[in-house]
Amino acid sequence: MYSSEKLKKFTQQIFQKIGCSEEDARLASNVLISADLRGVDSHGVARLSGYVRLWEVKRLNPEPKIKIAHETPSTAVVDGDKGLGLVVGPRAMQIAIDKAKKVGTGWVSVKNSNHFGIAGFHSLMAVENDMIGISMTNASPLVAPTFAKERMLGTNPIAVAIPAGEQPPFVADFATTTAANGKLEILQRKEQDAPLGWIQDKEGEPTSDAHGLKSGGALVPLGSDRDHGSHKGYCLGSVVDIFSAVLSGASYGPWAPPFVSFLPLAENMPGEGLGHFFGAMRIDGFRPKEEFKQHMDNWISRFRNTTPIDPKRKVLIPGDPEREMEQTRLNEGIPLHESVVKDLVELGEKFGLSF
Amino acid sequence: MYSSEKLKKFTQQIFQKIGCSEEDARLASNVLISADLRGVDSHGVARLSGYVRLWEVKRLNPEPKIKIAHETPSTAVVDGDKGLGLVVGPRAMQIAIDKAKKVGTGWVSVKNSNHFGIAGFHSLMAVENDMIGISMTNASPLVAPTFAKERMLGTNPIAVAIPAGEQPPFVADFATTTAANGKLEILQRKEQDAPLGWIQDKEGEPTSDAHGLKSGGALVPLGSDRDHGSHKGYCLGSVVDIFSAVLSGASYGPWAPPFVSFLPLAENMPGEGLGHFFGAMRIDGFRPKEEFKQHMDNWISRFRNTTPIDPKRKVLIPGDPEREMEQTRLNEGIPLHESVVKDLVELGEKFGLSF
Repeated sequence: MYSSEKLKKFTQQIFQKIGCSEEDARLASNVLISADLRGVDSHGVARLSGYVRLWEVKRLNPEPKIKIAHETPSTAVVDGDKGLGLVVGPRAMQIAIDKAKKVGTGWVSVKNSNHFGIAGFHSLMAVENDMIGISMTNASPLVAPTFAKERMLGTNPIAVAIPAGEQPPFVADFATTTAANGKLEILQRKEQDAPLGWIQDKEGEPTSDAHGLKSGGALVPLGSDRDHGSHKGYCLGSVVDIFSAVLSGASYGPWAPPFVSFLPLAENMPGEGLGHFFGAMRIDGFRPKEEFKQHMDNWISRFRNTTPIDPKRKVLIPGDPEREMEQTRLNEGIPLHESVVKDLVELGEKFGLSF
Repeated sequence: MYSSEKLKKFTQQIFQKIGCSEEDARLASNVLISADLRGVDSHGVARLSGYVRLWEVKRLNPEPKIKIAHETPSTAVVDGDKGLGLVVGPRAMQIAIDKAKKVGTGWVSVKNSNHFGIAGFHSLMAVENDMIGISMTNASPLVAPTFAKERMLGTNPIAVAIPAGEQPPFVADFATTTAANGKLEILQRKEQDAPLGWIQDKEGEPTSDAHGLKSGGALVPLGSDRDHGSHKGYCLGSVVDIFSAVLSGASYGPWAPPFVSFLPLAENMPGEGLGHFFGAMRIDGFRPKEEFKQHMDNWISRFRNTTPIDPKRKVLIPGDPEREMEQTRLNEGIPLHESVVKDLVELGEKFGLSF
């Protein structure tokens, strides 16, 4: 078990070693480790060496000049200048929050960025300001639209965080596919099959082979197949792609830049880097915030007390599992897979740091 | 086959007979018949007698004073004054569009309304103004959250319409359940089974009985079951409920007022009527609109040309099937089920009109 403080400190040091300012490195490590704390292991410290490799191949600028490329009172396009998504993301969300303070809402589309960590982190920044927070991002193409055998979209997550009063906030944070890639990686490590309806093989047929992606297959949109609404998951993933990348001028669809540095960038990319989209809506732009929070408390407690199918398995509120995990891991530490530990030790050695 | 003009005229006359102004009745019939044209038969003229029955039990005000209850430059809560959702919806969307003209985006949450027809209609109003349009609504509780056997949410649809250049607009419009209730009604009429994963019985077990809802079952969220991501569909339906009703002061979750007049309103409703949520984002709040449209054309044509699994079944762009249907039905007329025709004939007789 590793304490989150230890992981944050090591991560911050690595980011400083590749040239990030102390402030940026601290912010980036906070975002990254918040994924480990919340149990989204695939988006946490396990990705640290991936960011370093992006820097090594010069696809990541450790000293970005993040700037607003265009704006109105409630909108902006932010140019991330190839900075760490873990830094560009929170900076862009802050711009959305500042706009919401002035005119009720703020909406920021971002180009020229890369992987921004867990979407929920950014949305929760708005909650601290008594706002609803929305964040989404496009990602490396791994997903085949309904009826397709070609990979065209990323797992394109959406996070929506909504403040409550006495209750903890409502935090929905999910990939627009049946299963996130991280869940598949867990099955791959255990050499277990995936449920049918998560992936298709290179011919577009459903497969339970957890390694199906490596042999030319694809993830499928939320809904799994046409009969069960995969066209709706495809719609959602497409909206995320368009809001994040077509609106900002980032690269979209099958041209979205891959996170892994060993894959080449697409030729004739139609935009710059990866894209994100952030929104902040001030609660009191709609109704008095205390009134809203009372009703959110009522909503949450009513849903938490929904009659369950199995009395031993209660109905959950979005955000419950991650918050419980965070409490456990703050107390007991974060477990890391041995391959991740090996990766971090080697990364430390490269920069003269001990993990 | 019935021409859309004939159906519109009849519908408008009926709305005027229950006391709507000529202008409101024309608008409402436009919204209603656009559903029939686009092939969403469950939301079209088949619902006309349902609206009349709501008026008969005094749950619908034909002469509403629709007003802004609270606002900031980019937000508003609109009080629909129990008006027809088919009228309140477009009026509220127009307020969102007007705000977007001034500050880049407009976001309107609506209370005290009822069923607003097809979500896509409202979103498309924004597209005509070179804006992205978003619309959603809560609805009668028919859906059980993941792990639940109680109906807590409506089919809570989301529509997102995005302008393009030479290509027709991108229009995603979908219920946040595996299957919309209208599809189930078609199977019920044909006495056919539903695919497993659409509904659960009153014990929460999956069932293929298309009448499962009538015997105490529920629709399930997009994703069908926990293994296939139904918690994500539950998140989406919840976000729609909160944006539409908790933010505005409408009645939410299991307390959402039913569309059918024979079901009583819930006791101790926590808000007023049904809720909607509308958004309009000016394209040029982000980047020059011609540039955006060129990239949307590129996005659409690239996705339309995705390698299909079956060469005879091409990959579709959201909005394609409805637009093709609209063209066909404008030319050939709209087919109506005999039970709908009977309903309309009776409705006409009640008001001294011939159908």
